[in-house]
Amino acid sequence: MTTSSSTDGSAVAAGNHGPHGYSSHKADHLKRLRRIEGQARGLQRMVEEDVYCIDILTQVSASTKALQSFALALLEEHIKHCVAAAVEEGGPAMDEKVAEAMAAISRLLRS
Amino acid sequence: MTTSSSTDGSAVAAGNHGPHGYSSHKADHLKRLRRIEGQARGLQRMVEEDVYCIDILTQVSASTKALQSFALALLEEHIKHCVAAAVEEGGPAMDEKVAEAMAAISRLLRS
Amino acid sequence: MTTSSSTDGSAVAAGNHGPHGYSSHKADHLKRLRRIEGQARGLQRMVEEDVYCIDILTQVSASTKALQSFALALLEEHIKHCVAAAVEEGGPAMDEKVAEAMAAISRLLRS
Amino acid sequence: MTTSSSTDGSAVAAGNHGPHGYSSHKADHLKRLRRIEGQARGLQRMVEEDVYCIDILTQVSASTKALQSFALALLEEHIKHCVAAAVEEGGPAMDEKVAEAMAAISRLLRS
Repeated sequence: MTTSSSTDGSAVAAGNHGPHGYSSHKADHLKRLRRIEGQARGLQRMVEEDVYCIDILTQVSASTKALQSFALALLEEHIKHCVAAAVEEGGPAMDEKVAEAMAAISRLLRS
Repeated sequence: MTTSSSTDGSAVAAGNHGPHGYSSHKADHLKRLRRIEGQARGLQRMVEEDVYCIDILTQVSASTKALQSFALALLEEHIKHCVAAAVEEGGPAMDEKVAEAMAAISRLLRS
Repeated sequence: MTTSSSTDGSAVAAGNHGPHGYSSHKADHLKRLRRIEGQARGLQRMVEEDVYCIDILTQVSASTKALQSFALALLEEHIKHCVAAAVEEGGPAMDEKVAEAMAAISRLLRS
Repeated sequence: MTTSSSTDGSAVAAGNHGPHGYSSHKADHLKRLRRIEGQARGLQRMVEEDVYCIDILTQVSASTKALQSFALALLEEHIKHCVAAAVEEGGPAMDEKVAEAMAAISRLLRS
């Protein structure tokens, strides 16, 4: 994790843990997520306009893939920063962080 | 597909195939998709507020599951209506419709 | 399902429903499954010989893909035969068969 | 990774990298994989005995889940050992190991 000296009250109020590994790529992540939001709106338009089911399903697959790519990008930064920091600490802190990351990967695989 | 007697100009203009199997559940589908759109906006808020990576990944898994559930609902109606109609026709029309549905299922599995 | 006039005692004893849609492709399916069994044995050899973790994971992905392809082939025949037969019957029999197929697809997506 | 001073010629001949993170759980992994091999044989028996398609698909989902669980167990040990060792080294070695692990996770997600 980057050295954190957050003075951002609202962020702290939201219960976060301060700047994370993904912070440096925030703009990229937000861009991806806005595109996914747009895809969700596009799906609504398709349903409203009675577009053929199979074409809607193709678009759902594209959105799911976009979500998975976002998740993988976030996970990579998490491993490089949060998990790496825990590894340097070693001991139970490391085991805990790795177990937490594995649980997240498992949820992605099962979803 | 049901026999279509659509008089809806805008729908035809959008290049669709007329009312589909899912038409009767349109309101349900739109509600689901609006929720997914809301989740995509929620993810942007989480990134902006530096929420902990793992909590964001949990939310991504929930959104992916919601998309998959929508896809399964759509697919069920597609099989009950479009594929069923093709089955009654029989012959190459049926084979084609089933192959098309299988390709969609395969894309969902791989995404 | 096709009308069954199975006289194969052992098959009936195994509680099956008689010849299914996939019966005509039995040899293909068995070939695929023997290859998957071979891959499972190959994975054991890799673990025994301390092969690098990432190379084992690549092999696991290949085996999972092979299982999914087998499932899709089986599902396609199931829809063409069992579901199609139920569609011709219509009514609750059809709804039941489609719901059963959807549950199977959902299990594949979640696994 | 543990400090390796392998003098095992056959292992080296197999092109491996010496004892890996998963080595300490070898017996567990082999047990899991033997069970998966047994499931692949069970699937062949089901096809040979004309078992109902949906029941075969349920068994395929179980085998896929078993493969994924094995992959997750292996990946967890890989992160705790190989990736952790690379993290301590830092620099490009770490980035490379993390990228390699991410590619493996991505393949699992897409399979």
